[in-house]
Amino acid sequence: MHATDVIARKRDGETLTTDEIMWFIEGVTNGAIPDYQVAAWLMAVCIRGCRTGETVDLAMAMAHSGEILDLSGVVDFAVDKHSSGGVGDKTTLVVLPLVVACGVPVGKMSGRGLGFSGGTLDKMESIAGYRSDLSTEAFLSQLKTHGIVLSGQSADLAPADGMLYALRDVTSTVRSTPLIASSIMSKKLAAGANGIVLDVKAGTGAFMGEVSAARTLAELMIGIGRDAGRKMVALISDMNQPLGAAVGNALEVREAIDVLRGGGPADLRDALPHRGRAHAAPGRHSERPGAAGPDAHDGGEAAERRGAGAFPPAGGTSGGDVRMVDDPDRLPQATIVETIAAPARGYVKRVEARAVGIASKVLGAGREKKGDPIDHAVGVVAHCKVGDAVAAGDPLFTVHANDAARLDEAKSRLSRAITLSEAPVAPLPLFYDMLEAI
Amino acid sequence: MHATDVIARKRDGETLTTDEIMWFIEGVTNGAIPDYQVAAWLMAVCIRGCRTGETVDLAMAMAHSGEILDLSGVVDFAVDKHSSGGVGDKTTLVVLPLVVACGVPVGKMSGRGLGFSGGTLDKMESIAGYRSDLSTEAFLSQLKTHGIVLSGQSADLAPADGMLYALRDVTSTVRSTPLIASSIMSKKLAAGANGIVLDVKAGTGAFMGEVSAARTLAELMIGIGRDAGRKMVALISDMNQPLGAAVGNALEVREAIDVLRGGGPADLRDALPHRGRAHAAPGRHSERPGAAGPDAHDGGEAAERRGAGAFPPAGGTSGGDVRMVDDPDRLPQATIVETIAAPARGYVKRVEARAVGIASKVLGAGREKKGDPIDHAVGVVAHCKVGDAVAAGDPLFTVHANDAARLDEAKSRLSRAITLSEAPVAPLPLFYDMLEAI
Repeated sequence: MHATDVIARKRDGETLTTDEIMWFIEGVTNGAIPDYQVAAWLMAVCIRGCRTGETVDLAMAMAHSGEILDLSGVVDFAVDKHSSGGVGDKTTLVVLPLVVACGVPVGKMSGRGLGFSGGTLDKMESIAGYRSDLSTEAFLSQLKTHGIVLSGQSADLAPADGMLYALRDVTSTVRSTPLIASSIMSKKLAAGANGIVLDVKAGTGAFMGEVSAARTLAELMIGIGRDAGRKMVALISDMNQPLGAAVGNALEVREAIDVLRGGGPADLRDALPHRGRAHAAPGRHSERPGAAGPDAHDGGEAAERRGAGAFPPAGGTSGGDVRMVDDPDRLPQATIVETIAAPARGYVKRVEARAVGIASKVLGAGREKKGDPIDHAVGVVAHCKVGDAVAAGDPLFTVHANDAARLDEAKSRLSRAITLSEAPVAPLPLFYDMLEAI
Repeated sequence: MHATDVIARKRDGETLTTDEIMWFIEGVTNGAIPDYQVAAWLMAVCIRGCRTGETVDLAMAMAHSGEILDLSGVVDFAVDKHSSGGVGDKTTLVVLPLVVACGVPVGKMSGRGLGFSGGTLDKMESIAGYRSDLSTEAFLSQLKTHGIVLSGQSADLAPADGMLYALRDVTSTVRSTPLIASSIMSKKLAAGANGIVLDVKAGTGAFMGEVSAARTLAELMIGIGRDAGRKMVALISDMNQPLGAAVGNALEVREAIDVLRGGGPADLRDALPHRGRAHAAPGRHSERPGAAGPDAHDGGEAAERRGAGAFPPAGGTSGGDVRMVDDPDRLPQATIVETIAAPARGYVKRVEARAVGIASKVLGAGREKKGDPIDHAVGVVAHCKVGDAVAAGDPLFTVHANDAARLDEAKSRLSRAITLSEAPVAPLPLFYDMLEAI
């Protein structure tokens, strides 16, 4: 087989065979195919697209480019989740304890954020001493003893994905549905969980702007997981406005703790039963005995049990100062806290998720490029949702900053992020759809 | 400017600005843009195509990536020619002396062949001692004293083209009309001639199978040359059957000498006036005094003068044993010469140029990859043209080989290359069109 032939076939929009895809990804992994050939192939895939079968083959080939974790010696059934990311998306932090409360073990490997605020790991690292670099052994041991573990992606898992992602990032080939789907699913398949829950966001603050594009991506990923024998659930959820109120690492951890204690913003609190059901669903249908508790059917009941677990991902082998969970005032706090007030009365027509995200990044909560440091304390709290009625002087945003210049830029961006209307405005939905293959 | 933005814009089929193209090609030339980014961009260009203005910008940027030869201190007006290559294409060897006989100096830089038989330089190197590696100074000196020079492409000219071509070759991005047109024209513009004649072949033995594709390529190249202030002529000529009879390096040199002496195959001999006219045309219209002789209008007259110059590209600074030109029996000769005879009477319906070319390559006349050695002596002589009537036993091909196994494979391929018909068959045209911008 010749790399130039595989590239030429994709250049011409032809369908690659399973053998060609396996051979190509093996060549990527062992370095036999040089970067410039991989780059040309990535661009051809990006423009020509892939058939579903090719995307499945691609995910499988990347998953098998390294170790595939075997969790069966540790738990009967485990759920993993992936969120396509968005502004204020702290669902992992609130949902994981819920799923565990339903009797379904959770083993999640998470990435670092390149987005508006940090990724889930960055958020957890707001808790002093939290370890996100567990070895495979420590990961399995924490899963066995606590029934829940949240750690960084091991380099041994799906190494081809890491190599392809590094090239995609510098060759403008990130925005490709088959490449996104196979990248996400290769890591999830390699991480070994039996059930995989996807939270695919749609809206201005998400990677996929349109619900239809989010649905296409979700369906593709469900197909990959189903072909690999995994139980799959996907939520299509809104990301036109921030999720919850807090955007920023420690601010989001605090909000997650509030929600688990029965408080927090209404959109996040009220959606818990639905999220809990979705995330526990793969375990509920498992044929393995004892995989899911009887109350897994009812996310509402699970939510009621949330007080019990407090904030389980912290503690155990993962470390983390649990006093910060018990008393969130101990979390990192910004030195400057200022409020942006409504200039007039009206109905909130728009809280631009992307603009709020960029303001948060400007404050230092997110990264411009890989390896950039993150300020865990800073961020934004949004006090209203689309459809809310506000009076003049009502707080719209609270800004948490550690630098006056950054504060000014963030405030300027935030004041443009919100639009008020004289006429009443309908609220945005939280979810557009839920897809299952279980 | 960021390479990823330029790549992304071409990925999305947008039109790049002159500044973007100049910046990108400068980055290619000085190594600031790594191979993998160039490769991704090449694939995007290959799939999305370019507007005419982008292709012109690309050719200009590549031409200006190195030295631009200035011939004005040496001759008032010089013509260069490019043939898109084909099976048995020895037109450079017969046309160059003709153009010089018309009083128009010729300064041609030629490439080495990667095709069926060697390139023009490989053919000339059949003549012992021929030097195809003239320095710029030697090139100019030979042009001044002899009015004709034929040498290899200097590495100093259009270096960006050399870099891009090397990457295109290994990333399956060779077949792209804008990349082909800008590559050819960047070298021609850098080589400094005032008039450029293009011989674009169409047919099974050519890069462009269809006349329409050949015409598109020719029009694009004429547009580039015109924008750069050059006088342009393009012939669209047939390459469905071999040109002339000989295919192979020394065999083609001998045939060129025969034609210049008034003999040789009818298709090559009879087309000389047309070719002569086309190639002298840019000089004829030159406003510089004395650039073209009065008989340049008439290729026929020029052809009659062909005896005078014998085979001018050999001799002078270029070296070359001119006794081989005076007595072609001194040229390299193969040890095995066999004939393939017609199995029955009939009319020749097809002499598949590509198959004859591959047979010649099998014998050792062409290269599989850059740097491969070439056997100057071997090749094929085709004795008939589409439309000819043949009797059973008439010779169809003479095969010149130096290896029995290669001979067998070549004979097997050649016997499949020809098709006879019981009904009369119309001959193929020699030319489809001639385009001018002078």
